[in-house]
Amino acid sequence: MTRLATPVFDRVALLGVGMIGGSVAAACRVRGATGRITGYTPQSDAREALELGLIDAAAGSVAEAVRDADLVILAAPISAQPALFTDLLPHLRADALITDCASTKASTVAAARERLGPAFARYVPSHPIAGSERHGPQAARADLFNGAMVIVCPQPENSVGSVARIRDLWSALGARVVELDAPRHDRVFAEVSHWPHAVVFAMCSAIANGGFSEDALRFAGAGLRDSSRIGASSPQLWADILLDNREPVLECARAFEVELAALLAALKAGDRVALAACFEPGSRWRQALKP
Amino acid sequence: MTRLATPVFDRVALLGVGMIGGSVAAACRVRGATGRITGYTPQSDAREALELGLIDAAAGSVAEAVRDADLVILAAPISAQPALFTDLLPHLRADALITDCASTKASTVAAARERLGPAFARYVPSHPIAGSERHGPQAARADLFNGAMVIVCPQPENSVGSVARIRDLWSALGARVVELDAPRHDRVFAEVSHWPHAVVFAMCSAIANGGFSEDALRFAGAGLRDSSRIGASSPQLWADILLDNREPVLECARAFEVELAALLAALKAGDRVALAACFEPGSRWRQALKP
Repeated sequence: MTRLATPVFDRVALLGVGMIGGSVAAACRVRGATGRITGYTPQSDAREALELGLIDAAAGSVAEAVRDADLVILAAPISAQPALFTDLLPHLRADALITDCASTKASTVAAARERLGPAFARYVPSHPIAGSERHGPQAARADLFNGAMVIVCPQPENSVGSVARIRDLWSALGARVVELDAPRHDRVFAEVSHWPHAVVFAMCSAIANGGFSEDALRFAGAGLRDSSRIGASSPQLWADILLDNREPVLECARAFEVELAALLAALKAGDRVALAACFEPGSRWRQALKP
Repeated sequence: MTRLATPVFDRVALLGVGMIGGSVAAACRVRGATGRITGYTPQSDAREALELGLIDAAAGSVAEAVRDADLVILAAPISAQPALFTDLLPHLRADALITDCASTKASTVAAARERLGPAFARYVPSHPIAGSERHGPQAARADLFNGAMVIVCPQPENSVGSVARIRDLWSALGARVVELDAPRHDRVFAEVSHWPHAVVFAMCSAIANGGFSEDALRFAGAGLRDSSRIGASSPQLWADILLDNREPVLECARAFEVELAALLAALKAGDRVALAACFEPGSRWRQALKP
């Protein structure tokens, strides 16, 4: 991995030190992308992240974490982010930038705009397309963003220089940075991430609640293992994400229900041609998805 | 890989030489599990398998393939298997055994029982839990069954010796053999394979037929890639499998629809606790699935 000669930021406040926050911290250290990292979390795991060597210090409050930082990174669950904007504002250095890692952008941007006042201009929203079904700082990986895509959603108030520095940070962690406006981000990620999680949770819960859950553990092949992997994700985290992005997700749900109804009608009717025709657009789409 | 000193069978007739049949042939050769393998397929790919070096000879008819064989392996699509039983019977050696690779068992067993007469006693049904979304002899892999599970469904008419020889064949290819009765096999595999394929096809077709299919190709992360992988499977092959195992699959569909309805109700109501509760059994089940 390439290591920067000069860090992009000198002192980082990391608000939320779970799998994503912990990986940001680990990657920043390995890449030399930032100086000292102080972690804070409303739960108890900032100390755990400190013990794991992911961060340099565990702060007891948002104020203590943010005070000296020239970059504040929010990596907390979506529902915790609005309160963090309120709490960090009085302690924010006049030159500090803010970014985040949330999987939905429109509501976080709205909360930031409402709560940060003029400092909103220094908030450049990010969404790293990385992660796994695992969670907590023990699951952090320094190479999580290496080769991953990071979406940055610049706001009209952002300066070109602020956007460039946030892009530089993610690039330094090995990521490929792509810009997208927030509403389009949310609609596209409902399609490629949020709704697929809902479908897979439903598939796994149907197995779990049925009479063959033990057999399913024993006889699951590679197909079910791969297709169900994201079903091991955190129910609370994903309830948060889906509710936060409800309208785009419900649009995806309606499209899925149309496909499901057609498939079941063909299956019940014993119509082989119609059933294969239901599968064909999906099969062609998936074959077009490059490895 | 261990190679047998003495093959389990001397001459094999392989009826169907696609990805699964081709992999059986390649594995038999590498492991020394059988002698000469003659392939036959109603389509054109037995010649392709010959050119790929998977089989020793390409037969022009079922009669020619089966005549000298002490083992006949059916690896054709499910809907093609009943006719193959009829066609092979007049040419079958008196001591030959028969097995197959179909993903559903009850209908294939019924067809064999009806068409093979007394020779049904020499048909020992198999289902190798291996494969991929790829198809055709180009996708064949000699190590496909190495470490995989193979379900064998012994019939009351089978001799203990016949069952043991079919088990020995799969074991020689590196597989772990498990016995299951055919109706239970079909119900369990509806749960762990057939219905999950239907769900993933519906998910992929909804993306393909929606307005964001290009964005989805661009922004798909590891989660969607893994969960959609089996969506690239053959629509015809899976229409066959789902129709062949319709009643067990429809049982799974009903359980899935219950979960989906609960999830959507919680999402529409904005009920975070209820939504997370929908995900929890599935998340726990998936976490219990060993890697």
